[in-house]
Amino acid sequence: MSTKTKWLNKIKWDEQGLVPVIAQQVGSNDVLMFAWMNRDALARTVELGQAVYWSRSRKKLWHKGEESGHFQIVREIRLDCDEDVVLLKIEQVGDLACHTGRHSCFFQKLDDNDGEVDWLAVDPVLKNPDHIYK
Amino acid sequence: MSTKTKWLNKIKWDEQGLVPVIAQQVGSNDVLMFAWMNRDALARTVELGQAVYWSRSRKKLWHKGEESGHFQIVREIRLDCDEDVVLLKIEQVGDLACHTGRHSCFFQKLDDNDGEVDWLAVDPVLKNPDHIYK
Repeated sequence: MSTKTKWLNKIKWDEQGLVPVIAQQVGSNDVLMFAWMNRDALARTVELGQAVYWSRSRKKLWHKGEESGHFQIVREIRLDCDEDVVLLKIEQVGDLACHTGRHSCFFQKLDDNDGEVDWLAVDPVLKNPDHIYK
Repeated sequence: MSTKTKWLNKIKWDEQGLVPVIAQQVGSNDVLMFAWMNRDALARTVELGQAVYWSRSRKKLWHKGEESGHFQIVREIRLDCDEDVVLLKIEQVGDLACHTGRHSCFFQKLDDNDGEVDWLAVDPVLKNPDHIYK
């Protein structure tokens, strides 16, 4: 086993060769998004110092920000106790992580309005998505 | 469709009927753990006001803290833009989320020591696991 990939081999990749990844903002500790990585994506993330995910829908590497300019500068990478989940501590360029133009992808809050339970969008759109993706 | 389950139906459950869940501490915003829920687990979490996950290894509902006493009091539930990831904002009883006796499960940090890249356990064990699980 090459020492260059020992740290990658420690991760318990799932049946599809993927690992769940949480992106958390340095400083505020806000959870900005959740995505997946394969070995190549994580190796490329470390090499580049920017988040590179595996797009399950497009079935290819996805350098976050490649279209929007909203790159994620990686400051720290963590692994959980079971070695099957990765946490990235990042600086979010443009302070926008969500394709809807919001700061975080987790903008829908479960609301109980007198027994009427539903998800409410509670965080503002900071930038029109039409102006993010030209 | 019953209005009582409308909010559950909005979630895009995966092929196994599960959704990934991130547990984040209210206040510090620390990410404490990552687990999975099925419909029953999420419904039970809302009903109880405490985190109930689906244990994929034991194939049953897992009321976090049932053995350790380290329950997670749920203060807010969020859903992401794709509606396939849940974020819990919780108060962690005992301030310990990890079965290793640490505050957070994400205690291993990727470290580059002159080209020797590996995961290092950087957070302290706050309580001996033998004393957590009697």
